[in-house]
Amino acid sequence: MNHDPYIRPVHYYETDKMAVVHHSNYIRYFEEARVDFLKRNGIDFQAIEANLGIMFPVLDVQCSYEKSAHFDDTLYIYVALQSFTGVRFTLYYRVELADGSLCATGSTSLAILNAHYMPISLKRKAPEIYQRFLALVEKDDATK
Amino acid sequence: MNHDPYIRPVHYYETDKMAVVHHSNYIRYFEEARVDFLKRNGIDFQAIEANLGIMFPVLDVQCSYEKSAHFDDTLYIYVALQSFTGVRFTLYYRVELADGSLCATGSTSLAILNAHYMPISLKRKAPEIYQRFLALVEKDDATK
Amino acid sequence: MNHDPYIRPVHYYETDKMAVVHHSNYIRYFEEARVDFLKRNGIDFQAIEANLGIMFPVLDVQCSYEKSAHFDDTLYIYVALQSFTGVRFTLYYRVELADGSLCATGSTSLAILNAHYMPISLKRKAPEIYQRFLALVEKDDATK
Amino acid sequence: MNHDPYIRPVHYYETDKMAVVHHSNYIRYFEEARVDFLKRNGIDFQAIEANLGIMFPVLDVQCSYEKSAHFDDTLYIYVALQSFTGVRFTLYYRVELADGSLCATGSTSLAILNAHYMPISLKRKAPEIYQRFLALVEKDDATK
Repeated sequence: MNHDPYIRPVHYYETDKMAVVHHSNYIRYFEEARVDFLKRNGIDFQAIEANLGIMFPVLDVQCSYEKSAHFDDTLYIYVALQSFTGVRFTLYYRVELADGSLCATGSTSLAILNAHYMPISLKRKAPEIYQRFLALVEKDDATK
Repeated sequence: MNHDPYIRPVHYYETDKMAVVHHSNYIRYFEEARVDFLKRNGIDFQAIEANLGIMFPVLDVQCSYEKSAHFDDTLYIYVALQSFTGVRFTLYYRVELADGSLCATGSTSLAILNAHYMPISLKRKAPEIYQRFLALVEKDDATK
Repeated sequence: MNHDPYIRPVHYYETDKMAVVHHSNYIRYFEEARVDFLKRNGIDFQAIEANLGIMFPVLDVQCSYEKSAHFDDTLYIYVALQSFTGVRFTLYYRVELADGSLCATGSTSLAILNAHYMPISLKRKAPEIYQRFLALVEKDDATK
Repeated sequence: MNHDPYIRPVHYYETDKMAVVHHSNYIRYFEEARVDFLKRNGIDFQAIEANLGIMFPVLDVQCSYEKSAHFDDTLYIYVALQSFTGVRFTLYYRVELADGSLCATGSTSLAILNAHYMPISLKRKAPEIYQRFLALVEKDDATK
């Protein structure tokens, strides 16, 4: 996780009556950070879905909340590709506040499906994307 | 608007740091109430979209906020079909709190499009649905 | 989990471009089901927060997705209190579709804090609520 | 409206089953753009609410949808202060896509209230902020 974080402010509509970010929004932040992280590594969800008909539905999510975030706080979200099997992959997230304190951590596992929601072999269907996933999981391993 | 309202509670995640329902959620409440209202009048958005490939995208929305709603309040949403031209229609909404006080009012106009986002003649494509819209707009006129 | 489920339809605005419920919404469904379940068991989040200044922020969430839900599907959400320590508690959720098939499962752990976000002893601060939690966790144990 | 727009991508979770941004999200985009626009003009909602206890609840919203936005599109949101009376103000929004085509337009009126939700005189309570609003509405007038 030695790369640049995904950075975004907390919006007013994301707070709840406790005056902090509602916990459900972190699952959405993870998605934003995942799309940004993979795009910067040559894996463009939008282009892959539009051009290759490949989708990445979420299989499971997990999030632990450490410190509340407030309206107009800036969030720094670090992402790492933890594992990649060719048919599914798992990402890890670490959300920090501007002062470097830990806000939340989490993970999501995603499947690799075609437009009919059937599992596909990314290696055969999109070998270049497959190689980028492989390179990314190895790089993240190396920096652990 | 002499029919039964659409009734739903305010969820915690719909409040914001002012401890009231965030104003954007009323646009979503209008959608819930519209789907429910039209379904009860024989116009089932889900079935029409799935079986006939007809969609109803929103052309414009308007909402005026009168009194805040809070977590666990019960909302009573009254809907009326204000106009129907065969290619678009306009609904009016009135949101009341449990004590009958006025919470918000609003309106939405919707287009009638096919799966390629092109305008269609509902009269020719789905005459039965067309008649139900006509009957509904006349009924709502009569009760004004 | 032998009690009545929390029942609610899927709203149009909860779907995403895969035409299924966006995965983040299940975290919100869990909240709705939790508020409903505890209220039916004499633990009213809204009243407790308003009258006693006690809040229940979420410490962690987990959700596994089994089968997609679609617009206008009806969701049946079963809730059980898995554990209760006096300072935190964990709930388990099971989401089923109308045909009884499994849609998703998940869990959330919540803290028990005062209005200053400090841990409190529910036993001392609100003994009646404490007893209701105890009774509930035992009942859920008994029906396992 | 000759200033820099507020720029943001469309997130996956903001799309609906028509594969376009759900219409309710534009009301949230307006809020994001409004907070950003006013902050750049010395009117910091977060600081004003935290330090002066002044809140800006929305009185009404309006949005007209011209062209759909899709996942990963970049939105350019131009904001102008249309009017300011000292107790309320109205902002106008214009959302463009990357190719300069018009996506949506809208407006919101906001009240100026204290922490007890009572109207206040901004001129007396926060004269510096009042002057910034005045300067801004005049500038926007001049560039029409």
